[in-house]
Amino acid sequence: MSLLNDFEWRYATKKFDPTKKVEQSLVDNIIEAARLAPTSNGLQPFKVITITNQELKDKILPIAFGQSIVSECSHLLVFVGWNKYTEERIDHIYTITTQERNQPADRYKNYTDRVKELYLNQTEAENFEHIARQAYIGMGFSMAEAAVLKVDSTPMEGFDAPQLDALLDLESQGLKSVLMLPIGYRDESNDWLLNLAKVRHPKDEFASEIK
Amino acid sequence: MSLLNDFEWRYATKKFDPTKKVEQSLVDNIIEAARLAPTSNGLQPFKVITITNQELKDKILPIAFGQSIVSECSHLLVFVGWNKYTEERIDHIYTITTQERNQPADRYKNYTDRVKELYLNQTEAENFEHIARQAYIGMGFSMAEAAVLKVDSTPMEGFDAPQLDALLDLESQGLKSVLMLPIGYRDESNDWLLNLAKVRHPKDEFASEIK
Repeated sequence: MSLLNDFEWRYATKKFDPTKKVEQSLVDNIIEAARLAPTSNGLQPFKVITITNQELKDKILPIAFGQSIVSECSHLLVFVGWNKYTEERIDHIYTITTQERNQPADRYKNYTDRVKELYLNQTEAENFEHIARQAYIGMGFSMAEAAVLKVDSTPMEGFDAPQLDALLDLESQGLKSVLMLPIGYRDESNDWLLNLAKVRHPKDEFASEIK
Repeated sequence: MSLLNDFEWRYATKKFDPTKKVEQSLVDNIIEAARLAPTSNGLQPFKVITITNQELKDKILPIAFGQSIVSECSHLLVFVGWNKYTEERIDHIYTITTQERNQPADRYKNYTDRVKELYLNQTEAENFEHIARQAYIGMGFSMAEAAVLKVDSTPMEGFDAPQLDALLDLESQGLKSVLMLPIGYRDESNDWLLNLAKVRHPKDEFASEIK
């Protein structure tokens, strides 16, 4: 088995059929894929907010510079990151870790001390940049799972993040938006991109080997 | 079908069996997955360098702070990003695009003008941060493909990037290292992490819905 056919099949859908909804069990799988993605130091510093409320999706339309996929998609997944690392957040996941592994509570103390030393001495902007990168791995896993499930997905950076943060009241939760991933089903008759070749750098430009 | 079992199976392998090599066709698939990953504006601003030379892998060991997986793995994949966006790089991929789609050479001129306006007015550091994020999507796709192929992979940020760039002579190519992804086969008898539970934030902390 290989995912390459699925990855060839997927494309950044530009026109969703708004009448076709993705089954909840498939949405759950797509989100679960992100939850299972690896993150730096195992901190998992991001979450996924799923928006199905049509009024809210329509409010996001201007924030996404009029890209209709945000309102026409079945489910709008928003990947949001912690605004920064904190001692409490780092301790929280390692408390869960020792509990689930039946380990002493201080099992990872030396490790988390080093992690705190690293991140808590960075600026909030440096923290968030690192946090945002982790969300990209999660979104990658979600897109892979969506492709296997033959659900269309379109990764989106193009939106006004501060406006979206305000609309979703993220700041009060210590969160900031990173990415959006509308999912749904392509409108085959009306998507200009559907029948255009997927273009990538040639393999010999993309990959090299040092033997 | 779903990838969730594969994502449960995968983990950040801490001990590879250095005697087990990954077949070339599987390595090719894992790299091809990254090539097929979507990137912002379709620019694909990263590449994958595969290192199999043992002497070179050993030289990377201290650069990776002694993490033995870089020398014990079968293939060491290094995800490298463009140091910055340039007019030439943007034009190059859109020249390939119009050729492969049999479109007029200026088909995307308005679009690429806007892309250039955006990125060429940023600092090099801003450019590279954006470029690095794209490499994380590609690494996500590579890890997903590896998991399906039952090849182990360990995402790594923990290395001295400037030292690695110097060792691989990346600067002269306008490239900078972003991530490493050693792949191979787990040493089941000697990997301390293998039998510990995979821990994630609980689903109700990770995901929420606005209906």
